[in-house]
Amino acid sequence: MQFSKMHGLGNDFMVVDVVTQNVYLSPTKIRFLANRHSGVGFDQLLFVEPPYDPEIDFHYRIFNADGSEVTQCGNGARCLAHFVRMKKLTNKREIYISTQTSRMVLTIIENNMVRVNMGVPKFELPQIPFDMHQIEKKEILYLAKNYIFGGIVSIGNPHCIMIVNNVDSAQVSIIGPILEIHKYFSERTNVGFMQVINREQVLLRVYERGVGETQACGSGACAAVAIGIRLGLLAEQVQVALPGGKLVIYWRGPGQSLYMTGPAVHIYDGFIND
Amino acid sequence: MQFSKMHGLGNDFMVVDVVTQNVYLSPTKIRFLANRHSGVGFDQLLFVEPPYDPEIDFHYRIFNADGSEVTQCGNGARCLAHFVRMKKLTNKREIYISTQTSRMVLTIIENNMVRVNMGVPKFELPQIPFDMHQIEKKEILYLAKNYIFGGIVSIGNPHCIMIVNNVDSAQVSIIGPILEIHKYFSERTNVGFMQVINREQVLLRVYERGVGETQACGSGACAAVAIGIRLGLLAEQVQVALPGGKLVIYWRGPGQSLYMTGPAVHIYDGFIND
Repeated sequence: MQFSKMHGLGNDFMVVDVVTQNVYLSPTKIRFLANRHSGVGFDQLLFVEPPYDPEIDFHYRIFNADGSEVTQCGNGARCLAHFVRMKKLTNKREIYISTQTSRMVLTIIENNMVRVNMGVPKFELPQIPFDMHQIEKKEILYLAKNYIFGGIVSIGNPHCIMIVNNVDSAQVSIIGPILEIHKYFSERTNVGFMQVINREQVLLRVYERGVGETQACGSGACAAVAIGIRLGLLAEQVQVALPGGKLVIYWRGPGQSLYMTGPAVHIYDGFIND
Repeated sequence: MQFSKMHGLGNDFMVVDVVTQNVYLSPTKIRFLANRHSGVGFDQLLFVEPPYDPEIDFHYRIFNADGSEVTQCGNGARCLAHFVRMKKLTNKREIYISTQTSRMVLTIIENNMVRVNMGVPKFELPQIPFDMHQIEKKEILYLAKNYIFGGIVSIGNPHCIMIVNNVDSAQVSIIGPILEIHKYFSERTNVGFMQVINREQVLLRVYERGVGETQACGSGACAAVAIGIRLGLLAEQVQVALPGGKLVIYWRGPGQSLYMTGPAVHIYDGFIND
């Protein structure tokens, strides 16, 4: 089996072409491959599969290191676009992909920069497992004193955004898990801590649901900017500096699709006996 | 640059053929490659170089993930032997290698099992940075109460062996660092905790100097068995079960070379742009 190792802002992937190769990997085998000492090592395994209907170019499947299949990964989508061009599986610059639950358009901007249409941010309530009727803003403000509650939004997954004066001193590991499992979020939430530098630049740290603080959360960057634009704090195009690197988010406002642009890095090509 | 990823009992290596490839890697580049998210990821990088004199087959260099060069790695030596056979750099079963400070003979036993001549264990004092004149056995026994002090030995690097009734409940993370930096070890020491099952089988956990507890320390297994044989507790051939897997140690006693036999596993072949 041939594969490539890639990363997007340090979030790393084993990418396998299942268009030209016949590959099946059991969850046990995926866990074996994910081991960073005795296997290949990765955060997620990405499968590029043939399309299921003529409107898409590729089907995109994502497996976590524990072998479970998940439905979305923004950093992975950028790597997938770079991979299919590099491996000459397509020569298009606009690539239509399907995932288990959605469709996405990936655009190659230049070299290793890829733009992803992340869909329309959802602020309405059935979209986010958050009971607004019960919320008392004061309570969250009390839980996270000295932090301003920015808002909640779904980018396919739920995000709660806090606005802080200094992202370096934000108590991400303390406030993050308190909000993650707060009773108002019936399916828990990701928590972003955003420092606004100016209308075009923010700093961001994200506490990911079920994971903890990560180097770079793509959907978290989208969520923070959507909240910032909605509050009138940010311009349409904003650079988000995460610990792992930078993303550019573009959003023209409610009802419009939001776009994330960032790097996809090819590290090496590998061959492993099945 | 072509490379292979290999491991010996979970201690993992990026192995590079510098016989047929022209490769130079700066310490900065080695640190970059060692990163498990944005690089290849490894504990050590192994270079297989051409021999410097006619009596050896290959010169063997070892770099830690921080880019520094080190002089010995038993798990790496087994992988190196498997690598040069697999890549057809030699068809010998007995392979003579030089390192910065020593010479070793590696023997391919079968499939991926390799035997390494680890040299003669040294119990004499200038060989081990340990001041026997000052030692009061009672003090070590007091420091590590309920643990029997087995002895000290050098296998190229210093080891202090404690004998325990139950290796699972041994307080490796507490006793290890106390002995590692004890004033009697002027250059610090590795600390092994050995449970004797019978004359042919022991269980072992090793606290490695400057590192902490590891999954599998090859020289630690050699040291534990040498001490056990010297105390009359063990036979000439002993199976050592470490958390990461098993090694077989063979030693005929003082003045003789000690042999370590264990697995070397090829994981995948890779290609990375320099």
